Amino acid sequence: MTPDPIQRLVVELAKLPGIGEKTAQRLAFHILKAPREYARDLSRAIAEVVDKVKLCSVCCALTEHDPCPLCSDSRRDGKVLCVVEGVADQLAIERTREFKGRYHVLHGVLSPLEGVGPDQLRVKELLARLGSSLVEEVIVATNPDVEGEVTALYLTKLIKPLGVRVTRIAQGVPMGGDLEYADQVTLARALTGRREM
Amino acid sequence: MTPDPIQRLVVELAKLPGIGEKTAQRLAFHILKAPREYARDLSRAIAEVVDKVKLCSVCCALTEHDPCPLCSDSRRDGKVLCVVEGVADQLAIERTREFKGRYHVLHGVLSPLEGVGPDQLRVKELLARLGSSLVEEVIVATNPDVEGEVTALYLTKLIKPLGVRVTRIAQGVPMGGDLEYADQVTLARALTGRREM
Repeated sequence: MTPDPIQRLVVELAKLPGIGEKTAQRLAFHILKAPREYARDLSRAIAEVVDKVKLCSVCCALTEHDPCPLCSDSRRDGKVLCVVEGVADQLAIERTREFKGRYHVLHGVLSPLEGVGPDQLRVKELLARLGSSLVEEVIVATNPDVEGEVTALYLTKLIKPLGVRVTRIAQGVPMGGDLEYADQVTLARALTGRREM
Repeated sequence: MTPDPIQRLVVELAKLPGIGEKTAQRLAFHILKAPREYARDLSRAIAEVVDKVKLCSVCCALTEHDPCPLCSDSRRDGKVLCVVEGVADQLAIERTREFKGRYHVLHGVLSPLEGVGPDQLRVKELLARLGSSLVEEVIVATNPDVEGEVTALYLTKLIKPLGVRVTRIAQGVPMGGDLEYADQVTLARALTGRREM
């Protein structure tokens, strides 16, 4: 009974992560109700994003210009490389303003269950980069979960033989957290990872 | 630091109801990661929906062809008119297969706080329709909340003088509900609205 164009839009919207059919329908009606320019702008923004955004040929981050602004920034320290799972993680680290080195984006983690092996990740690009540049340390900043840990171990095995130092971001109790409510694994990691005051 | 096209897309997506900036970012990255055809299809579906979908000149529902399939369906009973707030409500009622009459979509409810008066709703169209057709009963199916009730009362005052019967959908305990957990107002309505067995 819904007009076909609405149905087609609902089908496409429902393919987005976390958006079910009910939500997709609500979004579709919102798009119809909003001023016409909104649909035009949104439609154009979606078309443009895949047209204009590509992977940086150096660090594999998403960028409009290749190499990306970060890779072209000569003030960044080329001796330290931070390896992240995705662009969102890179953004999170940049927001801390704590890291002045360069990045490498894997675009995923090893996950045999989901059929993701090293060939599906940007590992080859990472190794090529280490071979041809003066990187002295690789910080593995994959997520502190099973897949992230496995990926970190895998990368360590590959990179250490190249004579490059490999480090892992610290795991412990989060700031503002409460020891009483911290899970066992986190607390155990906090203890083994303790530092001199 | 994010490329401009991604930022523009995040801004547009974040204007959708229930989508904050974090979710918008996740959706944008998903669109980038998905096969290129997806972005093309989604972008086209959004552009088309506002291009092709208009209001039915009879019942004000959203439709691709005017009058809408429901208004052109001669098997529907033109003597009973069901007034709903929005197209989603119309869909919900159609799904029951209980109603064989025709619809009128208000596109909102009276809400002085949000600046919605009768002129912002399709009330004029409803009255014009009642004046020129053979409608014998108007079922007011606005939501059972404050705005919906106020709108129902307002419409009753306008329509009754035209000699048309005005009814309201029943309010009571929902099927599968539990009297113990029903709120007072609902239970009170269920009692006053009791029917002979």
